[in-house]
Amino acid sequence: MLFKKRNTKCGILRQEDEGKKIVLNGWVASRRDLGGLIFIDLRDRWGLVQIVIEPENRPDLAEKAKDIRDEFVLWAEGTVRSRSNPNTKIPTGLIEVVVEDFDIINKSELPPFPVDDNIETGEETKLRYRYLDLRRPVMQNYFAIRNKTYQVCHRYFEKNDFIEVETPVLMKSTPEGARDFLVPSRISKGKFYALPQSPQIFKQILMLSGFERYMQIVKCFRDEDLRSDRQPEFTQIDVEMSFIDRDDILNLIEGLIIELWKEVLDYDVAAPFMRMSYDEAMNRFGSDKPDLRFGMEISDITDAVRSTEFKVFNDTIGEGGIIAAINVKGGSEMSRKNIDELTEFAKKYGAKGLAWMKFANGEVNSPIAKFLDEAVISQLKSQLNAQDGDLILISSDKKRRAQTILGALRLECAKRLGIMDAVKDKFSFHWVIDFPLFEYDEDNERWVAMHHPFTSPMDEDIALLDTDPGSVRAKAYDLVVNGAELGGGSIRIFNSDLQQKMFNKLGLGDKEIEDKFGFFIKALKYGTPPHGGIALGLDRIVMTLAGTDNIRDVIAFPKTTSGLSLMDGSPSFVVEEQLKELGLKLLSEK
Amino acid sequence: MLFKKRNTKCGILRQEDEGKKIVLNGWVASRRDLGGLIFIDLRDRWGLVQIVIEPENRPDLAEKAKDIRDEFVLWAEGTVRSRSNPNTKIPTGLIEVVVEDFDIINKSELPPFPVDDNIETGEETKLRYRYLDLRRPVMQNYFAIRNKTYQVCHRYFEKNDFIEVETPVLMKSTPEGARDFLVPSRISKGKFYALPQSPQIFKQILMLSGFERYMQIVKCFRDEDLRSDRQPEFTQIDVEMSFIDRDDILNLIEGLIIELWKEVLDYDVAAPFMRMSYDEAMNRFGSDKPDLRFGMEISDITDAVRSTEFKVFNDTIGEGGIIAAINVKGGSEMSRKNIDELTEFAKKYGAKGLAWMKFANGEVNSPIAKFLDEAVISQLKSQLNAQDGDLILISSDKKRRAQTILGALRLECAKRLGIMDAVKDKFSFHWVIDFPLFEYDEDNERWVAMHHPFTSPMDEDIALLDTDPGSVRAKAYDLVVNGAELGGGSIRIFNSDLQQKMFNKLGLGDKEIEDKFGFFIKALKYGTPPHGGIALGLDRIVMTLAGTDNIRDVIAFPKTTSGLSLMDGSPSFVVEEQLKELGLKLLSEK
Repeated sequence: MLFKKRNTKCGILRQEDEGKKIVLNGWVASRRDLGGLIFIDLRDRWGLVQIVIEPENRPDLAEKAKDIRDEFVLWAEGTVRSRSNPNTKIPTGLIEVVVEDFDIINKSELPPFPVDDNIETGEETKLRYRYLDLRRPVMQNYFAIRNKTYQVCHRYFEKNDFIEVETPVLMKSTPEGARDFLVPSRISKGKFYALPQSPQIFKQILMLSGFERYMQIVKCFRDEDLRSDRQPEFTQIDVEMSFIDRDDILNLIEGLIIELWKEVLDYDVAAPFMRMSYDEAMNRFGSDKPDLRFGMEISDITDAVRSTEFKVFNDTIGEGGIIAAINVKGGSEMSRKNIDELTEFAKKYGAKGLAWMKFANGEVNSPIAKFLDEAVISQLKSQLNAQDGDLILISSDKKRRAQTILGALRLECAKRLGIMDAVKDKFSFHWVIDFPLFEYDEDNERWVAMHHPFTSPMDEDIALLDTDPGSVRAKAYDLVVNGAELGGGSIRIFNSDLQQKMFNKLGLGDKEIEDKFGFFIKALKYGTPPHGGIALGLDRIVMTLAGTDNIRDVIAFPKTTSGLSLMDGSPSFVVEEQLKELGLKLLSEK
Repeated sequence: MLFKKRNTKCGILRQEDEGKKIVLNGWVASRRDLGGLIFIDLRDRWGLVQIVIEPENRPDLAEKAKDIRDEFVLWAEGTVRSRSNPNTKIPTGLIEVVVEDFDIINKSELPPFPVDDNIETGEETKLRYRYLDLRRPVMQNYFAIRNKTYQVCHRYFEKNDFIEVETPVLMKSTPEGARDFLVPSRISKGKFYALPQSPQIFKQILMLSGFERYMQIVKCFRDEDLRSDRQPEFTQIDVEMSFIDRDDILNLIEGLIIELWKEVLDYDVAAPFMRMSYDEAMNRFGSDKPDLRFGMEISDITDAVRSTEFKVFNDTIGEGGIIAAINVKGGSEMSRKNIDELTEFAKKYGAKGLAWMKFANGEVNSPIAKFLDEAVISQLKSQLNAQDGDLILISSDKKRRAQTILGALRLECAKRLGIMDAVKDKFSFHWVIDFPLFEYDEDNERWVAMHHPFTSPMDEDIALLDTDPGSVRAKAYDLVVNGAELGGGSIRIFNSDLQQKMFNKLGLGDKEIEDKFGFFIKALKYGTPPHGGIALGLDRIVMTLAGTDNIRDVIAFPKTTSGLSLMDGSPSFVVEEQLKELGLKLLSEK
């Protein structure tokens, strides 16, 4: 069971180490018997290097090497020498190590898939054998990036005089929005803790506590039906500051992003980031997280088509909706089948149909051409800057829905036409600001908070809370990159009465407010400083830095979309005694 | 609701700022009307400074200042000037700020206790108004120390090429030792996640995954009946390394401690730390976490008293026990009442009684004197280096129990005699090593792991696993300072068969092993490197650095010993709908 400890690492050996006598520890990445020689690629966290056993000189070692298989753990002592056949594809490719002694430290059964970046193994198998999957260099690199991200964050916030504080994992259940994970209390039977969906209230309490600048890299939990890009536990970079305004937060976070991109990717991000109102983002890009790496902006063509005889347009206008369009440059090459696909795609976003116009060979091809006279077509061409080769997609619907449909089509067409590929190495950061405070929940016929109930309305809109809630703007902001939200935050309500009023507006009764948030409303009465903050999605930031779309690539031990950990088999049944101690039984039991 | 943002901070103003026009934001720490002037101590995270309103020059401001009460939030603009009556007790005491304009940003109700370091408020009230308690400078300082501890750790491990990896909070329940907190799964009804008691298995899996050097500052959870120094959630500095031996871990952690004490306290810790075997620690100090700041060591006096007629001693010796003693220097001044108290104290540790000998005025005073002849007394005096003024306490019992009793008495006497006070600013770090692998659980009549079941036995003791489990030593180590354990770790088992055998020895059947740990035993078969690690108690480290004995001082939002959060009222009842979704009902319901 003993082994000889290494004095250097596989992946860091270079030509200047030639002649050095060294000891390595690592895993067998591959083993090749070539005539007289046995070549082994030995791998550790720092990379791999070729080691050579020469049967002619050391028949004893060659004999022992016969047992070696992939993923065996070895120690090997030897001397670094130049390779006669350099491998320029790996950093250690100019040298190799002639083995003078070695031994097998531990064996490995045959792995269910090779530890190699280029494998086509199903994700389920990879998750079940996560420890083998994680050995692959591409995965090691993802977690090196994740680690770098932590370290840059810690340094950045320390430099800016922030204080890291841990907030509780066992807290009070205040279900608003997503579902809480619950933790039964054994001592207080019948009562439950909840895992935090975010430390929102606690970080605000920290501001009331006088810490002024708080940050934490913190696990959060949501018991939601998982989409493929969601995990039940995820990590936030959580920040809160006192005595500041919105721009203090925005500038702070821009500085963080600049340092992260510089240190991890050596990429220069330009600041300040563009700040675009929610209204403008929706009007121009049909999204509150627009991808600004390319154009294809939405045009409101309601005025241009107001005079046509097309019933669909006229009905929409009559109901207060809009007609809007995007010009898909070069899209006229799309086939009828492609356009049908786009129509189906649009329906997922609530479209009833999709009108379109193709411009090719000086002619217009469109199912609605008959409703549009020359002047209208000419007006549309001019407004949309359409030329031969272009495809115009038109949505007629309620304003925000028409925009959302076109926003989705814009991204879909960019994907199909290769625009996304062309911009994939660019990062376009910006802020979306001036969000509405509320959005209307049609299903439950009530106003809900667009961000959360602690978000401050704009001072000049407070009077509208009673008269026109839908038009109250919030002191809220989202950080967006390449069409993805990296995080969001707001200036908070710091007045107890206004907070109470906000909960009332959200339909909570006084009793419910007292039960759930009474302690917080009370806390606000004891000298609360103006404060605000932000929560950034660390997993999403690492995904963006690593260039992967799969959130499970950047979480060491992720769950499936059913919330299962395939490696350890959790969740699992527990013995009845454990439940009894908690004062619980399963509903299915009689 | 608007306020003027500060351009500097209260606590950092100094004489060299004289004449500067500044803006401050902060809380009113106190307000005094003195004849013509109003003095306010304004406090922010960085400290407090005196600001002065002069009614003669600015009657409008003086009028507004009448409303000001403690903990109001203000902004104030003014000019720094020298104080005519300097206050040398505070860093800003040479200057004050003459207010030229100010306003109240937010009011405060009358706090239930003053925000002051010297308060005698009950802990319950302080926990209920934690946000006020945390504003006290002494508490702010504890969390500054805690923050510094995080940052030093992050930097230290990054410098040493460690990688931070987050392990899951929702994991598999494998109750061994303490009780798990359970989290019901909604998607897999009837199944449960557990909150980690430690990321032990995951950090070992990370070694199998090739990360080689892992660290994490991580929350852990134990659903135990809380003692006053325990919390249901606590924080660990968790470390694991591959291809290393014990001394690599010890040296690494010594380096961390040195940096922490230097950076936080500017205290020079000497290395290497003393390494003492468990056996020696028990024999000499009656504790596996001995306080080495003072002597009062245990002597085994079995041989010296073997020939006496004292039945208690003879019976003990006959049953294989020992007679042991400590010499409490200067203890002869203890009254009979004091000694009775010590006897009661000893009984808590299982003593049946307590023999003692006082040396004063050249005489021996002892209830057992009649059993001891001159020669024995002389022998004892010599062995224990006893002189006039000393008190010898004697325990006769099974070896480890006698030692434990004397170990406890040693600390108690040191407390009573002022020795603890005299050494309170010293830090004595050392390692306890060579722990037994098992200890015998008398209640359940089985062997249990002294550390945990993943700890490797010493290579030379493996053969004893089958023949004499009690004498197998483990590759385990604890870090101790001043009689408190800061953390513990071990070199792990990295052989699948040995791990299986270990579980068997602990009384787990093959089926149970497969259900609970099957995935891990299997994982060990795929090329596991030799590895080991340690977990340090971050809360305990911060307590030691901060010089407090109360764990609730260093956790921002602690729970009571009943697991309650008095501030937010968790745990709390949840609505039936939430339980139904989880497939659960309360046992009390019919």
